[in-house]
Amino acid sequence: MNLVILAPIGAVVALLFALITGKGVMKKSEGSEKIKKIAGAIRRGANAYLKRQYKGVAIFFAVVCVILIFMAVAGFISPFVPVAFLTGGFFSGLSGFIGMKIATYANSRTVNAATNSLNAALRVAFSSGTVMGMVVVGLGLLDLSIWYYILNAVYAGLPEAERIAEITSAMLTFGMGASSMALFARVGGGIFTKAADVGADLVGKVEAGIPEDDPRNPAVIADNVGDNVGDVAGMGADLYESYVGSIISTAALAVAAGLGVQGVSLPMAMAAIGIIASIIGTFFVRSKESASQKELLFALRKGVYISAVIIAVVSFFLVRYVLGPEHIGVYFAILSGLVAGIIIGYYTEYMTSDSYKPTKKLADSTETGPATTIISGLALGMKSTAVPVIVVVASVLISYFAASAGAPADSTFNMGLYGVGISAVGMLSTLGITLATDAYGPVADNAGGLAEMTGQPPEVRERTDALDSLGNTTAATGKGFAIGSAALTALALIAAFTDEVAKIPGAGTIDLSIMNPPLLMGLMVGVMLPFLFSSMTMNAVGKAAQSIVMEVRRQFKTIKGLMTGEAEPDYESCVDLCTRGAQKQMLPPAIVAVVAPILVGVILGPSGVVGMLAGATGCGFMLAVMMSNSGGAWDNAKKYIESGAHGGKGSEEHKAAVVGDTVGDPFKDTSGPSINILIKLLSMVSVVFAAFIVNFHIL
Amino acid sequence: MNLVILAPIGAVVALLFALITGKGVMKKSEGSEKIKKIAGAIRRGANAYLKRQYKGVAIFFAVVCVILIFMAVAGFISPFVPVAFLTGGFFSGLSGFIGMKIATYANSRTVNAATNSLNAALRVAFSSGTVMGMVVVGLGLLDLSIWYYILNAVYAGLPEAERIAEITSAMLTFGMGASSMALFARVGGGIFTKAADVGADLVGKVEAGIPEDDPRNPAVIADNVGDNVGDVAGMGADLYESYVGSIISTAALAVAAGLGVQGVSLPMAMAAIGIIASIIGTFFVRSKESASQKELLFALRKGVYISAVIIAVVSFFLVRYVLGPEHIGVYFAILSGLVAGIIIGYYTEYMTSDSYKPTKKLADSTETGPATTIISGLALGMKSTAVPVIVVVASVLISYFAASAGAPADSTFNMGLYGVGISAVGMLSTLGITLATDAYGPVADNAGGLAEMTGQPPEVRERTDALDSLGNTTAATGKGFAIGSAALTALALIAAFTDEVAKIPGAGTIDLSIMNPPLLMGLMVGVMLPFLFSSMTMNAVGKAAQSIVMEVRRQFKTIKGLMTGEAEPDYESCVDLCTRGAQKQMLPPAIVAVVAPILVGVILGPSGVVGMLAGATGCGFMLAVMMSNSGGAWDNAKKYIESGAHGGKGSEEHKAAVVGDTVGDPFKDTSGPSINILIKLLSMVSVVFAAFIVNFHIL
Repeated sequence: MNLVILAPIGAVVALLFALITGKGVMKKSEGSEKIKKIAGAIRRGANAYLKRQYKGVAIFFAVVCVILIFMAVAGFISPFVPVAFLTGGFFSGLSGFIGMKIATYANSRTVNAATNSLNAALRVAFSSGTVMGMVVVGLGLLDLSIWYYILNAVYAGLPEAERIAEITSAMLTFGMGASSMALFARVGGGIFTKAADVGADLVGKVEAGIPEDDPRNPAVIADNVGDNVGDVAGMGADLYESYVGSIISTAALAVAAGLGVQGVSLPMAMAAIGIIASIIGTFFVRSKESASQKELLFALRKGVYISAVIIAVVSFFLVRYVLGPEHIGVYFAILSGLVAGIIIGYYTEYMTSDSYKPTKKLADSTETGPATTIISGLALGMKSTAVPVIVVVASVLISYFAASAGAPADSTFNMGLYGVGISAVGMLSTLGITLATDAYGPVADNAGGLAEMTGQPPEVRERTDALDSLGNTTAATGKGFAIGSAALTALALIAAFTDEVAKIPGAGTIDLSIMNPPLLMGLMVGVMLPFLFSSMTMNAVGKAAQSIVMEVRRQFKTIKGLMTGEAEPDYESCVDLCTRGAQKQMLPPAIVAVVAPILVGVILGPSGVVGMLAGATGCGFMLAVMMSNSGGAWDNAKKYIESGAHGGKGSEEHKAAVVGDTVGDPFKDTSGPSINILIKLLSMVSVVFAAFIVNFHIL
Repeated sequence: MNLVILAPIGAVVALLFALITGKGVMKKSEGSEKIKKIAGAIRRGANAYLKRQYKGVAIFFAVVCVILIFMAVAGFISPFVPVAFLTGGFFSGLSGFIGMKIATYANSRTVNAATNSLNAALRVAFSSGTVMGMVVVGLGLLDLSIWYYILNAVYAGLPEAERIAEITSAMLTFGMGASSMALFARVGGGIFTKAADVGADLVGKVEAGIPEDDPRNPAVIADNVGDNVGDVAGMGADLYESYVGSIISTAALAVAAGLGVQGVSLPMAMAAIGIIASIIGTFFVRSKESASQKELLFALRKGVYISAVIIAVVSFFLVRYVLGPEHIGVYFAILSGLVAGIIIGYYTEYMTSDSYKPTKKLADSTETGPATTIISGLALGMKSTAVPVIVVVASVLISYFAASAGAPADSTFNMGLYGVGISAVGMLSTLGITLATDAYGPVADNAGGLAEMTGQPPEVRERTDALDSLGNTTAATGKGFAIGSAALTALALIAAFTDEVAKIPGAGTIDLSIMNPPLLMGLMVGVMLPFLFSSMTMNAVGKAAQSIVMEVRRQFKTIKGLMTGEAEPDYESCVDLCTRGAQKQMLPPAIVAVVAPILVGVILGPSGVVGMLAGATGCGFMLAVMMSNSGGAWDNAKKYIESGAHGGKGSEEHKAAVVGDTVGDPFKDTSGPSINILIKLLSMVSVVFAAFIVNFHIL
């Protein structure tokens, strides 16, 4: 039986579960008129931003689409490519949009629930995260299924091997659309959220001396909008793309490995099982009142672990059934991905949570001022790359050798690559629930903001704070997970590129030797790209934040009675400035990501592209891990000091910690996570433009 | 005629010129007793540090030497290897030692000359730099010549091809010794100098509010000692190793390219010509009184350009004569290296000098505080990687294709690699004078310190300040140059490693495909190493600085009358603390550099090592460029503000700039430059342990 059918079933189940959970959230009360009013302002700001962003992105998609149509007419690519590209972008955007919608409805309901109990608040925030998680995996799998069945029907006349090759080729373009959209969502949302955050802090906290989330700060609504458009919509689009990318690249590798339609069905069936396991897991997430930080974390983790165990057990039988007992090595590839994801998550927590030594030592370094805080934080991030890379390397080698064990000599290599691809699918199979634990964070963060702005009693704020601070840890864990899977997927995509080139008539064989000068030089360029890209995204935040600083200063100066609470600030102008800043600044880095592989390909040829992809994947992985972990540790070191260590709030140590946190903001929420998408988008663009590069290159 | 004979002649000329110049410096008067006293304290501190460092390093060398002897007995390596290793280390250390000696004699003489005129001070400081430059190239070439002639005599019985193969193999070990010594000198010296600098600033400037170089600051002598042991002795050992490494690796590639003894003689003859050209260049360095910053810079540059033109002209005839007109493409390889070095130097100046937009914009970012200063500075450094990498890539491709043009098909590849190697030699051929313009900086810096501590009239301090601030630019240029040549040399050394493996009986061929999993995973590990290494060196500075902070605070508290100038601080205890801190902290990163290639080799095999070297070279290049340029720009942004911009000294902007500068200190003077050596040492260790790895590896 062809188990591809599991995919649409899983997708529908996920979407139904999201619908039910979402309805449950909507049934809760929003609370007082004041909460409603502010929550409404946040919601309007977020909608306005997304509307504007999608308009800007639409132009980009239109331009690329026209280029793709020309290429399709010229015969370089299949006529399905432009359509697949558009749908990938559409669904990636839709995932982010729905996730953001529910988050902007759940924030007020979480505050209101927090007036009752910690568990009630946790359930609302987590349910909102669950909707997001289920929408991402549900839509991802649904789109893949639809394309699979359409293309299968169109190419019904072809022999199986060719048919599947055509299907997976077209699907890779679908991935390119999703990646492009994800890049805009992550970069644009990341710029918005951090510009608002940095701008609000620099003037509000540092200059005017008013607390965080104070309603007198004109940028406070923009800051809360930012959590939704950056941490929710951006992350949703990002992980939609990771999820879909890992499945597609594995499917593409199945062809070369000679596994045929069975090899294609396995990752899709795995994903479906992951959905069911994630749904089961969500039922185990609940907490008692007065739970400690550790207990709360365990409450969330329990769900993930239960899902992981279910997947580990069921996938054994799945592999046996789909590929047969002779390919049981593939199961160990899945297992190694699953375990690697969990280890990276744990290690990320160790490096960035103030319950452990590294972040505590970072907090110590605030005693000698901001400079040593920065040095220590950067060093922490750099050091933290070692364990994840070793875990990924071990996982790749285990996957490769386990999957290729016993395969006939001529398919050892391709079976091994298939193993690497499926280990990424294994790692991401728990995405439904992992994403739920991650996406609940910004909702809790927003709820905290609402509690502050509406003057809730202290115990409410304490409850939302407990949830929020936990959200920092799950966010860091989620980022480690996103980066790890991105590295695995990108490696699989490099193989997909060489396969694609091999299929092009007259391409000849690529010289893949690392001593081949164009390849080695491509590698040098590839290693540089994440640095250049991060520089652009960091500067973008800086520029956008600058305009917020000016605006907030202007309002403090010109609006009379603002500081005494007699007059209201003009929140909308800040939201608008952030929106415009993000729109303007997100284009240049996106263009680099799309143009670089084509330019490198035209100058250095296909082997230069392979080198570039390897270099960018390796270096991008390190930089993303470093930035996420430095940023996470700075944030938690600041929170640790605010909880009373090293002199507490207002001390010189706290000021130094705030400097660290502010540097860490674009690190962990803009530049770092964007790199994940960069490395995959580079590969996707290379695959789609492979025929063009083969036909027009200098070296 | 065998032009190798030019090498010892050039070496002797360089050393004689150094001797004459050095005597000229020593003849100048040291000035007042007060200057003598403080200069004496600096000299004693520097000597004490180096003595201690060499002792510590001796243990490391003894351990490695014993391992090498065992390996020689086991037949993995030639019996010359342990001896070559020791001499490489010895001469590298000697270069640094002599350079530091003259610098500690020239600082007082520079202040004294500055009481007369700017030109007089420039001449003394530059002469001291010239001694250093000439000693480095002279000793480098001398040692190479001696080894060449000894080995040539020992292997006289072998046919030419085998004889040269044996000679170049043994010489590579010589390079490993030099690299190991350079690593300790750079890392240890870098830790010392920045711990003292950061420690002195954090307590003196920030807490006690006394100016830089104030004699009341107990860490002020340590700070000045640091300039000598880090920026002079460390840099000397570093560039000795770069110089020797580029010549050796090119010579090693000559064998595979089938150029025989002629191919070996070319880089050595080139180096000799570079020495003569550099000496001629030094005579053009002089300045008029009241020279502007730009005129001063041009005074220094003129010497370098004249040398470069001489080399560009003479090497054309040299290549024609040595290799014959059919290999004239090799000349263009040399030329491309020479030009690339100059472009990278220029671009580095553009990114880091406050005469241009990037650093001015960085200074603007201080208006919104330390956090935006850090973000902008990091973004500047990241962005600044793009141009150097494109220049290096272009230079490699030009060298490769120019040198291999017209070669028979079976030697195209090896001729191309030889071209890459010789382009590094071309880049470094002006080292004699480039190093002179670079090494003069710390002398001027020290002179400024002496002027402050001995209370010289303001015009003296102005003159030394003019020289010092220029030194920042030449130091940044020198670093760009060091990194560029390191990247080229490291690429050539990767080829030397594969050649070495190919020579081992029973090694088989290495699978060099980038899709070969052990190679690709080696690449991931390689990309990680510069991050891990930098994290260690940055933390080392932090820890050592912490102890200085405590000690300075203690002295301020316990020594009565210190702040009023009635009592003297205990300078020696700070020097001693820095020394001990540097000794303790320099070992772990050095061990990583030596152990990593062996460990990777044993687990992933020779192809894993190739991947690791490629990854480390690519990523190390970016990280080194980024750190050097961020650090340089922060330093100059601070100086720009101190000169009156953005509120000048004491303003909030200035405080933010000081934070940037303090973060930049370990970036540009410890971690960044150490990476150059790391990437070459990794290759050298791989080459020396090649036979061991081939015989004992898992994958």
